[in-house]
Amino acid sequence: MTWAEPIRVHTAHARPGMLTLLLKEIRHNPLLWLLVFVPAVLAGEKLAPESHTLLFVLSVLAIVPLAALLSHATESVAAKTGDAVGGLLNATLGNLTELVIALAALRAGQYMLVKASIAGAIVTNTLFMLGASFLLGGLKHHVQEYNRVGARFQAGLLFLATIALLIPSAMAGADRAPGIAFTRTLSLGLAVLLIADYALGMLFSLKTHPELFAGAEHGEGDEAPWPLALALPTLAGVTVLVALVSEVFVESVQKAATEFGMSPAFVGFIIVALVGAAAEMASAFSGARKNRLDLSVGIALGSASQIALFVAPVLVLLSYVMGPAPMDLQFWPGAVVMMLISTLTASLVTNSGRSAWFMGVLVLLVYVIFGMTLYLLPPAVQ
Amino acid sequence: MTWAEPIRVHTAHARPGMLTLLLKEIRHNPLLWLLVFVPAVLAGEKLAPESHTLLFVLSVLAIVPLAALLSHATESVAAKTGDAVGGLLNATLGNLTELVIALAALRAGQYMLVKASIAGAIVTNTLFMLGASFLLGGLKHHVQEYNRVGARFQAGLLFLATIALLIPSAMAGADRAPGIAFTRTLSLGLAVLLIADYALGMLFSLKTHPELFAGAEHGEGDEAPWPLALALPTLAGVTVLVALVSEVFVESVQKAATEFGMSPAFVGFIIVALVGAAAEMASAFSGARKNRLDLSVGIALGSASQIALFVAPVLVLLSYVMGPAPMDLQFWPGAVVMMLISTLTASLVTNSGRSAWFMGVLVLLVYVIFGMTLYLLPPAVQ
Amino acid sequence: MTWAEPIRVHTAHARPGMLTLLLKEIRHNPLLWLLVFVPAVLAGEKLAPESHTLLFVLSVLAIVPLAALLSHATESVAAKTGDAVGGLLNATLGNLTELVIALAALRAGQYMLVKASIAGAIVTNTLFMLGASFLLGGLKHHVQEYNRVGARFQAGLLFLATIALLIPSAMAGADRAPGIAFTRTLSLGLAVLLIADYALGMLFSLKTHPELFAGAEHGEGDEAPWPLALALPTLAGVTVLVALVSEVFVESVQKAATEFGMSPAFVGFIIVALVGAAAEMASAFSGARKNRLDLSVGIALGSASQIALFVAPVLVLLSYVMGPAPMDLQFWPGAVVMMLISTLTASLVTNSGRSAWFMGVLVLLVYVIFGMTLYLLPPAVQ
Repeated sequence: MTWAEPIRVHTAHARPGMLTLLLKEIRHNPLLWLLVFVPAVLAGEKLAPESHTLLFVLSVLAIVPLAALLSHATESVAAKTGDAVGGLLNATLGNLTELVIALAALRAGQYMLVKASIAGAIVTNTLFMLGASFLLGGLKHHVQEYNRVGARFQAGLLFLATIALLIPSAMAGADRAPGIAFTRTLSLGLAVLLIADYALGMLFSLKTHPELFAGAEHGEGDEAPWPLALALPTLAGVTVLVALVSEVFVESVQKAATEFGMSPAFVGFIIVALVGAAAEMASAFSGARKNRLDLSVGIALGSASQIALFVAPVLVLLSYVMGPAPMDLQFWPGAVVMMLISTLTASLVTNSGRSAWFMGVLVLLVYVIFGMTLYLLPPAVQ
Repeated sequence: MTWAEPIRVHTAHARPGMLTLLLKEIRHNPLLWLLVFVPAVLAGEKLAPESHTLLFVLSVLAIVPLAALLSHATESVAAKTGDAVGGLLNATLGNLTELVIALAALRAGQYMLVKASIAGAIVTNTLFMLGASFLLGGLKHHVQEYNRVGARFQAGLLFLATIALLIPSAMAGADRAPGIAFTRTLSLGLAVLLIADYALGMLFSLKTHPELFAGAEHGEGDEAPWPLALALPTLAGVTVLVALVSEVFVESVQKAATEFGMSPAFVGFIIVALVGAAAEMASAFSGARKNRLDLSVGIALGSASQIALFVAPVLVLLSYVMGPAPMDLQFWPGAVVMMLISTLTASLVTNSGRSAWFMGVLVLLVYVIFGMTLYLLPPAVQ
Repeated sequence: MTWAEPIRVHTAHARPGMLTLLLKEIRHNPLLWLLVFVPAVLAGEKLAPESHTLLFVLSVLAIVPLAALLSHATESVAAKTGDAVGGLLNATLGNLTELVIALAALRAGQYMLVKASIAGAIVTNTLFMLGASFLLGGLKHHVQEYNRVGARFQAGLLFLATIALLIPSAMAGADRAPGIAFTRTLSLGLAVLLIADYALGMLFSLKTHPELFAGAEHGEGDEAPWPLALALPTLAGVTVLVALVSEVFVESVQKAATEFGMSPAFVGFIIVALVGAAAEMASAFSGARKNRLDLSVGIALGSASQIALFVAPVLVLLSYVMGPAPMDLQFWPGAVVMMLISTLTASLVTNSGRSAWFMGVLVLLVYVIFGMTLYLLPPAVQ
């Protein structure tokens, strides 16, 4: 097909044509009409910074279409690069959002909120994203098979990353209060080890063993993928917009939540995590519906691993530069239990490389019970 | 074989013929002669209600042949319906017994005994029934293979059900005493979620995905299966008798145990659970000996799951109607550890879909150590 | 090749020729020149028993070549008997060392050191030996496959053995201090059960089901195996020398460690365990480099299992004869957490029967974090 080559090259460089393609996409997809809330929320923050409930609602409405755009852009890149790299790319950009949110809390010295959002992101990405992917995929496909080797590897990575993250908490819980200096030094050493490990993990999945992460045979997607010249700039630009809107969301969510009767633990652990991961969820769910469960599992487990191996240690290190005091990695006991259960669940359910709708129901059940527990927990205990 | 058809139809409707068949079965199976203890124990309860040790021994002797009858009836149904439905049916009827026992304790307000029997039933069904099935099957067959997908699915179901059941205990243990009101509300919400999940699980295993639970290729059983017209009434009638005898057993067991030097925790956790599950065990062990390990694993894990997903939440809901006060789902820490270890063990050992005798020895070892611990535990601590 | 037969038989009986072969091996392998430190450390102990740092360094230098000799001897036996028996043999002889070390501490009544070395041996054998084998093997081979069934079985055995070992600690932790008499009686009963189980495990792996432990197809080793007539006496003699040198090591390590600024917990858990397992590690790493990962996994998991099922209960029983007071099996909570995490990690990573270098990095990460935690832990807390 040598004659087609010049056309593709030409298309890839035609920026105005790209914008036309993007606008056409928006015109045909009613969900994307919600993009009007992006300027609305940014304007609202300037004009009425005290209308917390309004800003909260506007920011959620604005994040949804941005997540949808990000989803299509990531899938387009994934279509050209393979599911694993696409999943990795998506998780990194999605977690950039969480990193930006946590950085705002870090600057304000709200370390409990930072830790709750780290723990909540691991639990939500693992249980909710995985469970809902299994359920949504299973409602359309009788039994879904996916790359067991990749899933087991990622579940093992997540298990080990979570264990590493939890050792300071486990030691503080198991032993008689070894002291804040011990916990801080341990957390700092841990942060350095986790980031080194994350870099080695990138080397492994992208350079030395990419084939372990390759997706199984898939059905074709129903939407045409964008060319890279549209997908890559959209990925970058939409991520920035998500970050901007997310900051408004975080500022408003605490006060809006109090009005809705939600406890602070529920907000940090569930609401912030769900909205922060909205973009990745759109991709994961879309993959599951298209019977590309490798993509869904890769996003869910990869995203949770990156929170543990990358976002959490980076926040510890940045707390020495940007925060009022060094942050350690000691979580409250209930969060430790929930993180451990989430990663064990991920290991057990991805073990077989098969899924059906009820598997999703079970995983979601554990998530719903966690959410119910946090919702009911009296504030003094958290 | 069209000429044979009318004969089978005729047989299936000839009720007197059915009774003859049942009596013939009893005449040829010396174990069933123990059925004489069924009227004996029911009469004994009327005539000598204070002879606890006698009633205890009589009730155990009466439950054994009832369990054997139940076993053959269930296998006959399983032979016509497939192992999964047979296993499900058997687990439900077997757990009816446990439900009846627990209801008697619930009415009396003995919530510690109810919780001990729930925890003990999960541990005993998982470790003892699974371990003894592996051992008994392995002594006859060199290596036994069974349906991995079904076993993994059931182990995953059991893991998630146990986790859900244990969240109130984990939260109460991990955090600083969140209060009885919190634990009760959480237990009530949990009970509703678990029952809804149980109903969805039935839909899944019986309607949408029955093939996941189908047994692997099996050798033929050495006993001829009963026709459904005999098997179904026997299943129902014998279950009622088991329930009646079990109630005598529960009334007598506490006082008889004290005479034998057993602690209350040991009685609730081990003795009540072993006798309560006698019927299911007979089926599971018989399946293992006949190289139908799918049936054994299905009964063991399915029965434990049903305790967690169905019996426990039903008891919580009924405590609002029948009990002196609402019952919560907070277990004592030792029971939580034992339940978690049991379900993790079940996940790990059923993972390979193969078994040999030593696997059974190992699983039984953990059960024996649990039993020894409870036997030795000073009563004040329990 | 009938003509070659008499030559091999002749060679196998020529004892002087065996010594020549051993000396030739030593001449060609510079590592074995370190054997000169074996007489040096034994002489040093007589001449300068107070030079702890010197004796510490000399004993480590002496153990390394002994471990190398033991490695080659074991591999030679393994080449003739199959990997499983060779691995078992190697683990038993390697653990003899640990048993001798612990016996010296037991006689002196240093029960904390005995328990730290038991816990440290399980963690080090599982995480460090397995992780380093995966890493060293993975740096040479792209993806390594090994006998899944054997690995899963051994991981299951290790999980159950560890659980059994930890029940007294779990009960003491979960419940309100059930008392020293309860813990001692439970530990004694447990010791008897564990040893009985160990004997049954031997029967299983050597007699009834040896084929489950057979290695997968392997590449050829680059060194010629020794004849049994050389390998067996070398195995025995070198093990005795390792034991002698290890005793000097244990006497000197505590005081030398203090000079190097290491805490007692770090010394017992990490240093004693690493040096005590040096011989097995040499074999496991050599197996991994030669793409015989079955041998490595067998040594690592088998060795950890034997500590739990054999060394620990034997020490409890011997404490009644040789120690100043009965020893129980209650570990400090941090050790319990580390042992549980180690065996869970072993189960999850050996599940797939495949390995690549990053899997080794992850397992080693957990070990390094454990080591860092113990190094930083203030002495008062341990």
